[in-house]
This record gives sequence, C-alpha cells and structure tokens, in this order.
Amino acid sequence: MTDSHLLRPSDLLEHWLGHRRLTRRVIEAFPDEQLFTFAPAPPMRPFGEMVWEVHGQTAYNLNGLLGGGWGEPVWERVPSADKTDLLAEWEAQTAQLERELPAFPAARYGEIKRLAWGDMLVFTAVIGAVDNEIHHRGQGIVYLRLLGITPPEFWER
Amino acid sequence: MTDSHLLRPSDLLEHWLGHRRLTRRVIEAFPDEQLFTFAPAPPMRPFGEMVWEVHGQTAYNLNGLLGGGWGEPVWERVPSADKTDLLAEWEAQTAQLERELPAFPAARYGEIKRLAWGDMLVFTAVIGAVDNEIHHRGQGIVYLRLLGITPPEFWER
Repeated sequence: MTDSHLLRPSDLLEHWLGHRRLTRRVIEAFPDEQLFTFAPAPPMRPFGEMVWEVHGQTAYNLNGLLGGGWGEPVWERVPSADKTDLLAEWEAQTAQLERELPAFPAARYGEIKRLAWGDMLVFTAVIGAVDNEIHHRGQGIVYLRLLGITPPEFWER
Repeated sequence: MTDSHLLRPSDLLEHWLGHRRLTRRVIEAFPDEQLFTFAPAPPMRPFGEMVWEVHGQTAYNLNGLLGGGWGEPVWERVPSADKTDLLAEWEAQTAQLERELPAFPAARYGEIKRLAWGDMLVFTAVIGAVDNEIHHRGQGIVYLRLLGITPPEFWER
C-alpha cells in the first residue's frame, strides 16, 4: 500500500482553486494605487509584480502539462500595472485551469521532465507553482497589515 | 486514467522535508533577540510564534495520521521563546516525520476525517499544514528584509 499513489487530480485541482480564490481576494484587498508601488522591504517587489510572476509560472506549467512542452519560460515582469487587468488575467487563468487540468492523465504527474530549472517530477513542478503562490501571498498579507488593512482569512477558500 | 491517484507518499515526504529544511534556515537567519519580539505589522505575531503554530499543527496532523486520533488540537502558543529550543523541537519533529510518515498507508490520504476544524480529506489536512508553513515562512522572510537581512533562497531545499 505504501508505495501506491495517494491523490486524485480532482483533489489537487480543488486544492489549487481554493488557493486561487484566496489570492484573488488578497489582490482585491490592495488599494489600486498601492498594488504596484508599495514595496516596504526592498529589494522585495510590490505585490502586483509578485502576482504576475505566479501567473507566468503557472502559465509555463499549464503549457507544459497540456502539451506545449517545457522550454524556456517567457513572461513579462509587469505586463500591466493596472489592477483590473491583473484580476482579469488571473480569472482567465483560473478558468483555464478549471477547464483543462482535468484532462491531464494522473499517471503523468509521476514523470520526470526537463524544465527550465532542471529535471523535475511533474508533480513537483505543479505543486511548486502553488507553493510559490502561497509564499508570495503570505508576503502580500504582511504588506496589507503594514498598510493598516485587514487581510482575507487564510483558512477561507 | 484521470481518476486514478497521482502521487507517491515518498514524493510527498520529500516535498515536505524540503520545506522543513528551508524553514529551518529562515529560523536560523533571525537574530536571537528578534525571533520572538520583532512584530512590525501588528496584530501579526513575531516569526517565532508563527513557527510554534506550524509545529503544533504538524504535531496534530502526525498524531492523527499515526493513530492517535483527530480530537482537539492542544498546543501552547509559545512553549519557549528561546531560539535553540525552537530549533531543537523543529529538528525532532522533522526526524519524526522522516521516520514515521512512510508507514502511513497511501490509500488513507483519501479518507475523510473529522478534524477540529471540520470534516476534511486527510490529504487536505496534511497539505494544509505544509501550506501554513509556506505562508508563515513567506511572512518571516518579509520580516528578515525589514531587518536588513538577506533571506535564504526560496528555491533551495
């Protein structure tokens, strides 16, 4: 038993979507004029820039998972410094995830692929994008507190 | 294929241990006198208190997984405000995880259990503890930057 697999892709998707919803609420909690400018702990970036990174990394993973290959990641550092644009792209990517991830064969999470940052288990690549989202969102939550704003509750998804 | 399971417990353990090592390095990076006192974004807690919470939640999960049941979590908010104590307990828990988690039958990650915070998939409980560790560690990393300290690299595990 102990060497068999333990997780359904649908559980992974639900877990991921819960994080996406929470991150959306954290983006929304930022005042427009602070999202791409407030950087109280240099050289750390403003939260909006971190979210674009997560968006780019997630796009890279989805492209790899869904057949586009695992070449070099290509993403702009700040495609837009407008909160409405960021939220729209975030929602579009969430919708893509929800629509397309269920088609990915579960067994392939156990394959090793050559990613831009080295040979990696596909599961590790995917969960790594979720981890990076959690990591940066935690940082954004400190920024909100420094701005005197009560952040969304971590446990609500 | 798409409804089968996708992850070996050994992959989950390796993923978790990588995070434990990184969190250890973040604890080590704090000056002794700041770990339990520096709280620049009230009401957010000092990083040392957050780490004790992660330790307590992880202990609760390990106890549930390893047969001790899923009752009410019991942990002290700050069992010690000494960095050496925190690091020693952190390492002891990491060693327990490494020693005991492999014995947990993979199929049981798919069971629903009544936890203190509601009915939950065992996988969700376990990954939730890892997520909480990543979340708070991200916050600790902002604290380090605010203290003028370069944090450990997120991608090194």
